[in-house]
Amino acid sequence: MKLPDRIRIVEVGPRDGLQNERAILPVATRIELIERLAAAGLRSIEAGSFVPARLVPQMAETAAVLAGVDPCLDATLSVLVPNEIGLQAALAAGAREVAMLAAASETFSRKNLNCGIDENLERLRPVARAAKEGGLRLRGYVSCAFGCPFEGRIDPAQTISVANALHRLGCDEISLGDTIGVAAPLPARKLVEALSRDIPIERLAGHFHDTYGQALANIFACLEIGLTIFDASVAGLGGCPFAPGAAGNVATEDVVYMLQGSGIDTGVDLERLLDAGDFICARLGRAPESRVAHARRACSSDERSARQIPGG
Amino acid sequence: MKLPDRIRIVEVGPRDGLQNERAILPVATRIELIERLAAAGLRSIEAGSFVPARLVPQMAETAAVLAGVDPCLDATLSVLVPNEIGLQAALAAGAREVAMLAAASETFSRKNLNCGIDENLERLRPVARAAKEGGLRLRGYVSCAFGCPFEGRIDPAQTISVANALHRLGCDEISLGDTIGVAAPLPARKLVEALSRDIPIERLAGHFHDTYGQALANIFACLEIGLTIFDASVAGLGGCPFAPGAAGNVATEDVVYMLQGSGIDTGVDLERLLDAGDFICARLGRAPESRVAHARRACSSDERSARQIPGG
Repeated sequence: MKLPDRIRIVEVGPRDGLQNERAILPVATRIELIERLAAAGLRSIEAGSFVPARLVPQMAETAAVLAGVDPCLDATLSVLVPNEIGLQAALAAGAREVAMLAAASETFSRKNLNCGIDENLERLRPVARAAKEGGLRLRGYVSCAFGCPFEGRIDPAQTISVANALHRLGCDEISLGDTIGVAAPLPARKLVEALSRDIPIERLAGHFHDTYGQALANIFACLEIGLTIFDASVAGLGGCPFAPGAAGNVATEDVVYMLQGSGIDTGVDLERLLDAGDFICARLGRAPESRVAHARRACSSDERSARQIPGG
Repeated sequence: MKLPDRIRIVEVGPRDGLQNERAILPVATRIELIERLAAAGLRSIEAGSFVPARLVPQMAETAAVLAGVDPCLDATLSVLVPNEIGLQAALAAGAREVAMLAAASETFSRKNLNCGIDENLERLRPVARAAKEGGLRLRGYVSCAFGCPFEGRIDPAQTISVANALHRLGCDEISLGDTIGVAAPLPARKLVEALSRDIPIERLAGHFHDTYGQALANIFACLEIGLTIFDASVAGLGGCPFAPGAAGNVATEDVVYMLQGSGIDTGVDLERLLDAGDFICARLGRAPESRVAHARRACSSDERSARQIPGG
């Protein structure tokens, strides 16, 4: 089994991560985070969203974030847009890529997108059209691709149906979101395999959460069958909105460690990435949710050589 | 690629786990832990060790633990023995399996086993002989199979050499210990593949630590090539002695979740296992180091349905 030589990581920390943190960070901090992530080698970064600030105050002033980022930045910045108003704002702000949300769970769709699955897809149709007309790259998310906080397990056929609908709307890339982190590696791989019969696998991405600790195993299982795009969030920013205190987005550091350790190119400098994680966690007043970050911190203490235990 | 139908988990919490915890637990608690683990379906349990109590006070009175466990327990209990004195104690206590330690790192061997690799293997020879003569099943550990806290990366040839030496000593099973948790899935798999040319893969086990978050991915990568025995520690007991505060042994709960979710039989009842983890963590006064345990705890809170964020 041949592993891919190269994986593209889509860094979602500045949007999907920060929008689920309590703190509301100033524009300058959000800009510095994006620039640090790009300097670490990440070439695809979700930079913000054009949703109403009263709903998601963490993402207010996303236009100012885009305007403030170094124009020579060597990364594609993406913004989430919920509707045509958001899309127009993204175009005005000079975004090159936009992302749209769909869900594979009817209940989740109603609670989080305020309409059912089919109605949401219809609402996205003009957004997608305007995005393509505006020359934007278009990314679609399928939330609850494996499980839903309200409905439990989601039938893979349902996820496949929604992913195909996003593909028909013109999405260049479709990210399968394990919103509550319940997928195990074999079902994760099987879903990607099934979907790749309809949609070229180069257009699919895995968005795994580490809530049940499965994210890296899921990524490994999927890259073995040729999936080469994975979403991750520096320092595991965001946590799990549906299980407060539990892990959410897989930490980019941990993904990079696994891939580099397996000889797969990510283009990312792990040390600089860890520094970016430390930077944003200091601003948020919390510890990074990354095993690699914890291990590095622990190993830098002086205690490690002091213990002598006959041990396994 | 066909996954195995069934995996055997070797539960190392009561020995490798507890010996690395600060608290010294009473015999009755250690017995109850073992009985709860067996009741959860674990059939191979490391129950203690016969090392001098002044070195490892957590494992004192292992004979009393073995004597106190329900004689009808449906599990094979193993004990660690460092030398012939320990082996005689294990025989006297009625153990059916013993484990011996070797290391693939010269420095680690000198610091933790008080002699170099070769001298240690020579010292184990009479222990192994006496174990076989006593009708005991014999398990060998290769510590630092991938990396060493003192030497860094370990040459796979060194690990292969030590594993083969243990095999020649008569070990029925050889567990490859990623003592500092640095292995990534591809090197983990490659080492097992290489070793399985010398030693039947049914006699090899993976002992992965989650220090860098790689353990489940490593297990998945290895089970794909036919490795079917994995060590794990309930609630991640033990932590990492070489990086205080970082994760050590992979949590059994997380392994079981991944395998069950991938349709692989472990014989373990996850709910009862989680209860066993809660039980021992309450006695130790610490939280379980298991993502599944955290997620279950977080999901039982009432907050989860209260959040409504448009999110990925």
